[in-house]
Amino acid sequence: MSTKKHLNIGLVGYGFMGRTHSNAYKRVNDFFDVPYRPVLKAVCGRDRDAAGKFAGNWGYESIETDWRRLVEREDIDAIDVCTPNNTHAEIAIAAAEAGKTVLCEKPLAMDLVQGQAMVDAVEKAGVANTVWYNYRRVPAVTLAKRLIDEGRLGKVFHYRAQFLQDWTISSDLPQGGAGLWRLDAAAAGSGVTGDLLAHCIDTALWLNGRIDDVSAMTETFIKERKHNLTGKVEKVGIDDACAFMCRFENGSLGLFESTRYARGHKALYTFEVNGEKASLRWDLHDLHRLEYFDHADDAQLRGWRSVHVTDGDQPYMKNWWVPGLQIGYEHTFVHQVADFLENLGEGEPTAPTFRDALATQAVCDAVLDSAENRKWETVVPV
Amino acid sequence: MSTKKHLNIGLVGYGFMGRTHSNAYKRVNDFFDVPYRPVLKAVCGRDRDAAGKFAGNWGYESIETDWRRLVEREDIDAIDVCTPNNTHAEIAIAAAEAGKTVLCEKPLAMDLVQGQAMVDAVEKAGVANTVWYNYRRVPAVTLAKRLIDEGRLGKVFHYRAQFLQDWTISSDLPQGGAGLWRLDAAAAGSGVTGDLLAHCIDTALWLNGRIDDVSAMTETFIKERKHNLTGKVEKVGIDDACAFMCRFENGSLGLFESTRYARGHKALYTFEVNGEKASLRWDLHDLHRLEYFDHADDAQLRGWRSVHVTDGDQPYMKNWWVPGLQIGYEHTFVHQVADFLENLGEGEPTAPTFRDALATQAVCDAVLDSAENRKWETVVPV
Amino acid sequence: MSTKKHLNIGLVGYGFMGRTHSNAYKRVNDFFDVPYRPVLKAVCGRDRDAAGKFAGNWGYESIETDWRRLVEREDIDAIDVCTPNNTHAEIAIAAAEAGKTVLCEKPLAMDLVQGQAMVDAVEKAGVANTVWYNYRRVPAVTLAKRLIDEGRLGKVFHYRAQFLQDWTISSDLPQGGAGLWRLDAAAAGSGVTGDLLAHCIDTALWLNGRIDDVSAMTETFIKERKHNLTGKVEKVGIDDACAFMCRFENGSLGLFESTRYARGHKALYTFEVNGEKASLRWDLHDLHRLEYFDHADDAQLRGWRSVHVTDGDQPYMKNWWVPGLQIGYEHTFVHQVADFLENLGEGEPTAPTFRDALATQAVCDAVLDSAENRKWETVVPV
Amino acid sequence: MSTKKHLNIGLVGYGFMGRTHSNAYKRVNDFFDVPYRPVLKAVCGRDRDAAGKFAGNWGYESIETDWRRLVEREDIDAIDVCTPNNTHAEIAIAAAEAGKTVLCEKPLAMDLVQGQAMVDAVEKAGVANTVWYNYRRVPAVTLAKRLIDEGRLGKVFHYRAQFLQDWTISSDLPQGGAGLWRLDAAAAGSGVTGDLLAHCIDTALWLNGRIDDVSAMTETFIKERKHNLTGKVEKVGIDDACAFMCRFENGSLGLFESTRYARGHKALYTFEVNGEKASLRWDLHDLHRLEYFDHADDAQLRGWRSVHVTDGDQPYMKNWWVPGLQIGYEHTFVHQVADFLENLGEGEPTAPTFRDALATQAVCDAVLDSAENRKWETVVPV
Repeated sequence: MSTKKHLNIGLVGYGFMGRTHSNAYKRVNDFFDVPYRPVLKAVCGRDRDAAGKFAGNWGYESIETDWRRLVEREDIDAIDVCTPNNTHAEIAIAAAEAGKTVLCEKPLAMDLVQGQAMVDAVEKAGVANTVWYNYRRVPAVTLAKRLIDEGRLGKVFHYRAQFLQDWTISSDLPQGGAGLWRLDAAAAGSGVTGDLLAHCIDTALWLNGRIDDVSAMTETFIKERKHNLTGKVEKVGIDDACAFMCRFENGSLGLFESTRYARGHKALYTFEVNGEKASLRWDLHDLHRLEYFDHADDAQLRGWRSVHVTDGDQPYMKNWWVPGLQIGYEHTFVHQVADFLENLGEGEPTAPTFRDALATQAVCDAVLDSAENRKWETVVPV
Repeated sequence: MSTKKHLNIGLVGYGFMGRTHSNAYKRVNDFFDVPYRPVLKAVCGRDRDAAGKFAGNWGYESIETDWRRLVEREDIDAIDVCTPNNTHAEIAIAAAEAGKTVLCEKPLAMDLVQGQAMVDAVEKAGVANTVWYNYRRVPAVTLAKRLIDEGRLGKVFHYRAQFLQDWTISSDLPQGGAGLWRLDAAAAGSGVTGDLLAHCIDTALWLNGRIDDVSAMTETFIKERKHNLTGKVEKVGIDDACAFMCRFENGSLGLFESTRYARGHKALYTFEVNGEKASLRWDLHDLHRLEYFDHADDAQLRGWRSVHVTDGDQPYMKNWWVPGLQIGYEHTFVHQVADFLENLGEGEPTAPTFRDALATQAVCDAVLDSAENRKWETVVPV
Repeated sequence: MSTKKHLNIGLVGYGFMGRTHSNAYKRVNDFFDVPYRPVLKAVCGRDRDAAGKFAGNWGYESIETDWRRLVEREDIDAIDVCTPNNTHAEIAIAAAEAGKTVLCEKPLAMDLVQGQAMVDAVEKAGVANTVWYNYRRVPAVTLAKRLIDEGRLGKVFHYRAQFLQDWTISSDLPQGGAGLWRLDAAAAGSGVTGDLLAHCIDTALWLNGRIDDVSAMTETFIKERKHNLTGKVEKVGIDDACAFMCRFENGSLGLFESTRYARGHKALYTFEVNGEKASLRWDLHDLHRLEYFDHADDAQLRGWRSVHVTDGDQPYMKNWWVPGLQIGYEHTFVHQVADFLENLGEGEPTAPTFRDALATQAVCDAVLDSAENRKWETVVPV
Repeated sequence: MSTKKHLNIGLVGYGFMGRTHSNAYKRVNDFFDVPYRPVLKAVCGRDRDAAGKFAGNWGYESIETDWRRLVEREDIDAIDVCTPNNTHAEIAIAAAEAGKTVLCEKPLAMDLVQGQAMVDAVEKAGVANTVWYNYRRVPAVTLAKRLIDEGRLGKVFHYRAQFLQDWTISSDLPQGGAGLWRLDAAAAGSGVTGDLLAHCIDTALWLNGRIDDVSAMTETFIKERKHNLTGKVEKVGIDDACAFMCRFENGSLGLFESTRYARGHKALYTFEVNGEKASLRWDLHDLHRLEYFDHADDAQLRGWRSVHVTDGDQPYMKNWWVPGLQIGYEHTFVHQVADFLENLGEGEPTAPTFRDALATQAVCDAVLDSAENRKWETVVPV
């Protein structure tokens, strides 16, 4: 029924991100007229039963229990890396070397060195690649980018972002293992810095340009937790909270904060940009709205506008429903797949590429260094 | 220290409104350069001790216990009527006949007949007069009027207003007597219709013009309450809730509702006007903001603006503090006194005059008739 | 890969609702473990090319251009009626008589007589049936129902709802034909009453019980529009706006309003319920939130809570993502399909059934009668 | 008419703060039953005409043009220092040495050394003293303090505050002289740090305890401005923006930011405190509301409550109007005077005293040092 080219997907990992990606692959062609049709060819996980159940639920045609085997399969076009952070590099590099398209969950890597190796691999292999910083493709966020690019804000003075959660406040919560690897430094690399701030940084670099230097602090409020893999109470190695100040290359000041100890906030990613002519702000808890203040408005009627981003004039929205009817979180992944497939057809890269994501990694590294050394750190140019 | 003319005030009644008016008289010259200085000459109340205490608190120079005596005093320029509704007409008419300026609390009267007599009296006597529909002078509401007068809304399609409270839900609350006369039909005339909807109607007529006809319903949820004056449980005669639909002369549709049984709302007076080109809305719980939507805004950036009405460009605000710093409820009375004194110096009337308020009375009467007769009623032109 | 039973769907109509339903059928099994798997067997539309394109997009296996042919097909289990309102009855009755499961878009029918015939048909045939009043299954709305059923509001005093849009303000907009049949009285039966208020009424009856009587008004602001089918300027037969007051059987007062002339509102469906102990409110522009006020809260800390309905404890949400991440409009249809398939497996009806929807039709009829006759009308019991 | 003791006020400076204080003195006895009645005895300013005009407006009985003369007057009980920051110390110390009560505008001093001398002076003289950090007495902020003291938040993890303005973005704005001394480093000492962040710090120390160390950055976006006193274009010495991270003694992390370059914000002072059991937040643009989240609420109904702080149960509010009717900015000064006069009658200090304000000065100094040195600085204990 379709003349589209197929893109055979091999998914590695079937956790929360495995679900969001699978959904995106399945839905994209219903809503976006792109030249490729993703085919859910195989899902790979070490636990055969769990992988099988996942495959059954989502309609994957086959399963693998060793990602190396998946990478070798000739019927696989693209490897999607949804595993814990400490495995991204190995899998992605192997996939690139095997000539596969690579789609990698964020953060790109455990650190800058590892990230650089990944960039080298995909660029050397010349394979299409992207990193799932999905929030760029919330329509309201994409609209923010458009407004900035149109020059509506003028010179930017301030950029601030936060990502606040509250799910780890209980000291009874263990660390490590399925669903909780984000609390295990060995698997995650860092805590909120790589998990949450990385999103804020990716958006910031996209919207506001390079960050020159940072001063950061981190805290681990609960010092020991039972480890699910060893069964023992062990020192917690991740940062529960991280805040940093920075200066952007464009002269603006930045302020970033992330925590999993902000009671009352589930996933409150917010950002605000203050420019000479206008300001804008957004938050993930009402992701379908963009707040906008325009100094050019009639003086007696200036005010923050709450723009309900559901009109066909606004990014991605003509493909969904009708004005006033909001979309949700999962659609950001559909948008990323849509853009990726469209670009693939034209041989164009899809931002953020591995190289784009390396810049975020550089900031994360500087942040963690600064927090440890208690001094300003320059962000390594990438 | 001042060369302003004095306006000697005789206040009748010292309840909640007595306080708001006294405060307004005392403050107006600190903030507004008007040609008169109100002097708190006398307060009148039947309870000598209570009146004396009120006078001591606010600095009234003398007290009276019979309003007739107050009206006769030659050192009194203006009579301010703050008593229960059933006494407005007698006092105001006597004051007018004695040549006094009359400032009367709302609603003007118990009904249209009584109100017409009051209008006749002040007009025959040629005395300055005004009715305390204070919400017209919330800066955000005055701004709304300005925007409509500037034609920014274009043709109006819809007007809706509500005034929601929750303070009478308990059946233990008695009716009648000091502080509770608003629950006693003999003293108040009606319940929420005269107390709350009258405000909504006054604003509506001011902003959107004449109402032609209405269809209303009322309800008394608690049928009997102990009466504080008789000590007995008696039938409740007032309306606890009232809603009505109407058509305005300009072709727009109106919807109004008021109740004291809306759990969670203390004094939520709201209105919204939808025009061809723009819409606006306001509520008393955040009275310093006006919400405004302008269809002429760039399509991708249309949204409701939350205008923080604290700038010098906005009505009354240059007389107060600096942008961003809000004023409150009591300031509306200061504004009314300021306008009244300014107009008095120029021999101009201050809206709403008794005649303006008569139009609101006509709508209230039609509403109560419609609710009783269960049919559409034409509003008597006044 | 699946052992689920198949439910072969035959979709009639491929407009906006055809898309929402198709999406729901395709997604339900990815997120809900229900005993049936819908199969997109056929889509039916008079325009073969358009139907073919729709089928290609969504993956329907075949197309029909005559719904009678579809109804006759033995490989079809369920007929989904997504056509203009004036064709619901004929198609649904034929489908029922053919023994098909019937899923019908709202409003059920053009009027009560037609609706009764539809109820009779499905009940006589004993076929499963449901009407797509999808807003019942917004998680926040379902949560409201749960709270009311738990008795948290106590005695209800007030129910108010509105559905405000602004898309037909321009007089250049034509009526009739594809995409615009909602403006054509012959196809739609009524304007906002059947299109928008029907949603408000369905929710109200579900949450607050029977409506006894109503007093309504309607208005058609633009009297003539070009008709797309005839090419001529013709009288507009629909109501552009409709408001009504009502009394519920439980003693509470109701106020409802709908319009397509409320500048600034795209699809602002809102409702609020005020009870003795608590109140709640919701709106479609932020559909993932429920506002809740509980009088039992500590007095100094009472306030409206903005509940972000994204937790696993809340209706339907454990099947989606993680706390803080919102879903959107389309998910309400997925929920309705999920419930329908679950109930189908157990032989239980899925509300709202045709009979449930008939009650809404009765209110709509009374509303239109009242507006025409300018008097209170009793709602016919069904 | 009053048996209250008089407190004869000598006001030094008649700018914006001169107005807020004068209003507070004039209004306090109308609303609060305190043992003293402030008398506006004299206002002092170098410009005799301007001082005379101010005196006439507010009713000061006399004027002085030399503050030393005012301090010597035997009929003055209290000196209120409302002059630019660089004169606070000299005036306040002289007043204390003359045995006067001293009320000083914030920030206390130009730096810690100067501030310590002021503390020494008032303590040696044993005179009553207070500093006008008025935001402590916004009812919603006082309520926040009460909630924290009641233990409702439990262990605190995060404190964040910001004070955002946009009034100096234009490079045409000059520095120095009347109304603009806040832009002149010689008169103001610092820019936003002393002007705005000092408020944030005062509240933070009050609510969350001592700050141990800080890492800060400052920026001056417009490097040169015309100086109103010299008439020349001169280097701007103040900070236009300042942000800092810190650690509190109680283990929580702090994040503070202030700027006059945040387009769209007039006076947006906000703070948020995240505790183990509950969180709260407040902002000055809607100062009558406190947002509160309580984890102990029923799981399916948890949400941020918007508490409309206008009830008699809430701090200060029983002295004003009725529930639902908000007060504004100026009332915070009335509250401070009310508390001061009440405490004066009982011989008790009124926080923040000079000593309390010294702690804020210590943080400001550390912040400015850190910004200059680009390293973490320990806050000097005071």
